[in-house]
Amino acid sequence: MRYFEDYEEGRVERFGAYEVKRDEVIDFASKYDPQRFHLDDAAAAANPIFGRLAASGWHTCGMVMRMLTDHWTEDGHFSEGGTGVDELRWTRPVYPGDVLSVEAEVLSKSTPKSKPAIGFVNFRLAVLNQDDEVVLTMKVTNIQRRRPS
Amino acid sequence: MRYFEDYEEGRVERFGAYEVKRDEVIDFASKYDPQRFHLDDAAAAANPIFGRLAASGWHTCGMVMRMLTDHWTEDGHFSEGGTGVDELRWTRPVYPGDVLSVEAEVLSKSTPKSKPAIGFVNFRLAVLNQDDEVVLTMKVTNIQRRRPS
Repeated sequence: MRYFEDYEEGRVERFGAYEVKRDEVIDFASKYDPQRFHLDDAAAAANPIFGRLAASGWHTCGMVMRMLTDHWTEDGHFSEGGTGVDELRWTRPVYPGDVLSVEAEVLSKSTPKSKPAIGFVNFRLAVLNQDDEVVLTMKVTNIQRRRPS
Repeated sequence: MRYFEDYEEGRVERFGAYEVKRDEVIDFASKYDPQRFHLDDAAAAANPIFGRLAASGWHTCGMVMRMLTDHWTEDGHFSEGGTGVDELRWTRPVYPGDVLSVEAEVLSKSTPKSKPAIGFVNFRLAVLNQDDEVVLTMKVTNIQRRRPS
């Protein structure tokens, strides 16, 4: 079991290997972000940034969350959810065939006085593709259980 | 057709009526955020914030993006994607049965010197449920086509 107390500021971990599938890119975009360049090869080729079919940035966020959740599960960690995100940047397109991983650094920790059972851990996340290019960066605040005394 | 030039700073619009379905909450969470409180009623009841089955915060972001995309399509607006998000806060849980809408204010606009065909529009977004409670706030930067001269 891993609790709030077990996270050290400055610690960096790298994990995940999410393979981006073309069908999944189109399925996500159809439901949540049906812009042409996430659905259609010709429209993506005409886009000044993408050049070819690229995943929705929100889909990339979903993939990141899945890698975090799987990592936390392996780790015996109890997340109780998140409060927010700062400085989210989609720095490069994510394409079908990419394999993504996450680098997570513990930036800071804090404890709310009103809720003694939980603590907040602020992470800096960088998402990398198979060529170690950064495709997304963000800071997220995660709610974690405190170790029972 | 609506271009970068057609957005005015300070303008506020409200749109969207996204009905949150239980099956969709569980489907999204299974794929992208399989934490217990997004999948299982008993686990959600034990969570200090949710109390009952609640949507993944990233799922809410997907719903917001869908409302934006539908609005832009009706509006004849050309989005070319986004660059990032700041100050994203999940302020209240989103539950099956909720109906969400978006309030969008144009905060600022800018034009990159290197790419004369596009402009950046910075929006403040608030997402509200059927009781007009704010469930999510964020600032997003959207890339838009400039009017051909």
